[in-house]
Amino acid sequence: MESKHEENLLLLSEEEQLLRIARVNKYMAEAELDYILVGDNVNLYYLSGRVFCGYILVCSDGNADYFLRRPSTLKADGAVVYRKLEDMTNAVAEIIKKKPGRLGMMLDDTPYGVIQRLLKGLGGDIQPGNGSAVFRKARAVKTDLEIQQMEMSGIKQTQVYRKIPHLYREGMTDIEFQIEIERALRLEGSLGQFRCSGAEMEIYMGNVLTGENADTPSPYDFAMGGAGMSPSLPVGANGTIIKPGKPVMVDMNGNFTGYMTDMTRCYVAGNPDEVVVKANQLSIDICRRLSEMMLPGVEAKVLYQIAEEMVKEAGMECYFMGHSHQAGFVGHGVGITINELPVIAPRSRDILNVGNCIALEPKFVIPGQGAVGVENTYVVQAQGPARRLTNAPEDIQSLT
Amino acid sequence: MESKHEENLLLLSEEEQLLRIARVNKYMAEAELDYILVGDNVNLYYLSGRVFCGYILVCSDGNADYFLRRPSTLKADGAVVYRKLEDMTNAVAEIIKKKPGRLGMMLDDTPYGVIQRLLKGLGGDIQPGNGSAVFRKARAVKTDLEIQQMEMSGIKQTQVYRKIPHLYREGMTDIEFQIEIERALRLEGSLGQFRCSGAEMEIYMGNVLTGENADTPSPYDFAMGGAGMSPSLPVGANGTIIKPGKPVMVDMNGNFTGYMTDMTRCYVAGNPDEVVVKANQLSIDICRRLSEMMLPGVEAKVLYQIAEEMVKEAGMECYFMGHSHQAGFVGHGVGITINELPVIAPRSRDILNVGNCIALEPKFVIPGQGAVGVENTYVVQAQGPARRLTNAPEDIQSLT
Repeated sequence: MESKHEENLLLLSEEEQLLRIARVNKYMAEAELDYILVGDNVNLYYLSGRVFCGYILVCSDGNADYFLRRPSTLKADGAVVYRKLEDMTNAVAEIIKKKPGRLGMMLDDTPYGVIQRLLKGLGGDIQPGNGSAVFRKARAVKTDLEIQQMEMSGIKQTQVYRKIPHLYREGMTDIEFQIEIERALRLEGSLGQFRCSGAEMEIYMGNVLTGENADTPSPYDFAMGGAGMSPSLPVGANGTIIKPGKPVMVDMNGNFTGYMTDMTRCYVAGNPDEVVVKANQLSIDICRRLSEMMLPGVEAKVLYQIAEEMVKEAGMECYFMGHSHQAGFVGHGVGITINELPVIAPRSRDILNVGNCIALEPKFVIPGQGAVGVENTYVVQAQGPARRLTNAPEDIQSLT
Repeated sequence: MESKHEENLLLLSEEEQLLRIARVNKYMAEAELDYILVGDNVNLYYLSGRVFCGYILVCSDGNADYFLRRPSTLKADGAVVYRKLEDMTNAVAEIIKKKPGRLGMMLDDTPYGVIQRLLKGLGGDIQPGNGSAVFRKARAVKTDLEIQQMEMSGIKQTQVYRKIPHLYREGMTDIEFQIEIERALRLEGSLGQFRCSGAEMEIYMGNVLTGENADTPSPYDFAMGGAGMSPSLPVGANGTIIKPGKPVMVDMNGNFTGYMTDMTRCYVAGNPDEVVVKANQLSIDICRRLSEMMLPGVEAKVLYQIAEEMVKEAGMECYFMGHSHQAGFVGHGVGITINELPVIAPRSRDILNVGNCIALEPKFVIPGQGAVGVENTYVVQAQGPARRLTNAPEDIQSLT
């Protein structure tokens, strides 16, 4: 049956799409790829402005071909609508036959079995190049439109964070507090979904940590851990009652637009210990110092070193990025997923560019106290300090 | 630094684990695999009772070897603790060298790039068999412990569904209503996380549909669609105001234990149209009829045919499983993920077994009304009708 609503598949303006394809083309040239076949949700969203079921074939000459399986209400000029995967791969093979070249696929984003089926459908003896790496590099530098979407997420996330102190009631557990924050985020327009890169990365809506739970390591590659509520999702809040005078670290979902901002703030009912105030101020100071240094051409690893030096100077190194277990980074790119390039880590080879969106999260885990520190998302600019997108007050906020 | 809390990696009793490995071994024999290297969260959870970062090598002789990367607080007898992937693959290669055999990997659950790295680390010219298919078959039949966990999820999900009418306020949108249901589920202990099999399957906590939005197709392989709140997550509620007399279909997360139950109920503020009441009753009748037929040895496709016949007899076929776009199934296995075997579809080759946990969702989308129908999760038993785990009232509930 014919549907009522036909919609253009491409939600981006042609200009914006060309800009993104040009970025991808740049790194395709470096990787010596002539085509990339894209079928994962994150990169389909990047290229078209929407998630759909299908593929886009990006060519090194700036062209893009569309292959649409679902929903059939979408229309794109020249798009191949298919039901069986082989109809899609035949059409792709036809294009490549006309102008032979090396094909990349999303090797880090797509299950082995799916790539196998694609290769079989394409025929011949193809050794696919790694299109995932190309897109990771391309997406590390955001376009103006992407930055606008990050800004909008930052504004909304900030609005919710300002309300957080009013969501607290005495005697609450970490998870009860988190649930009220989740609701406030959702009512403000958060999509809830927390997109991570990496097949085994999981979390639900974010992380609220208090007490000893802050020092419990998780299997995941997040900065902080926590035991979680179940061994099937061992990260975050574990039902600890929030105690007066002890910090509660809130690191909750900033995905309001398909682009995520990442922000952490600490809250205390009553008066925090001196060491907690000191750690939070040190975190603020590191964020400020690094944000002043985040200029194009700067090496990511240098930023990590500066953070580490400031921590050592303050004598806080045994609490830095965890106590029993320490995370190996102090910041990361953020955008459609929470963990993008560049990575601010000791051995990172990344070099900063204008348009990088970077979350800095110098955090501390202090025995007997809990997790302390702030996190902010910044945009790297041509001049001056990186621009902060997450503007809730950074001092420890009082829960009353 | 040494951590305070050491924990046993294996959370299952040895007996329970042996039972699960025996099931896996059965399908390994069919697939002619001697080993399977498991590293995806879903199947690590199945084998050990917890998610961790590492691998389990399952051998056809019933043995399991553990390889643990994170968290290092976990301990297992004879486990290899590793940091670099090659240390893990070397240890695996050593085991296989002692007793050569064919290796399976989780080809449908693991990115191509990860499998490539594993194969490179293992050396030689290995053509891995499909361990994913083996585990899908093994997990289709639940153990008693798994059924207990499903039951617990069903009880809690039912408790929340009974409260849903009280969460409604006049003038609410679908998403506002959903947010209150999310909060109620979370406060009851829902883990929130909605685990799907399939790299591009995404949804946040479930689906609330009302009005015309019910007929909007999504890119995903769920029974129902909806436009969603953003083109980055195009499924579910889209901000439609709930109208008096029109049904609201609630299909929200039943993951309270790591095992999910799947339940759908409809709600109306005021009096529903006759056709809506008829469709909901037909859905109830189909569920009852099929649940009586769900016995070991029955072909899944026969169940679909019966459902289809009942729909045709009632003259409701143009609304069945969607109006503009129709889903190709009426039920599906459910467990650690929402979409397991068996699949109740016209061309399914699955045959029912005792211990299958199956969600039946005969649903209707009626133009001018919305989505209507119930969904229940059942356990297939040796005799008698399948046992229902989702026991909220099935009639259309009044929102007041």
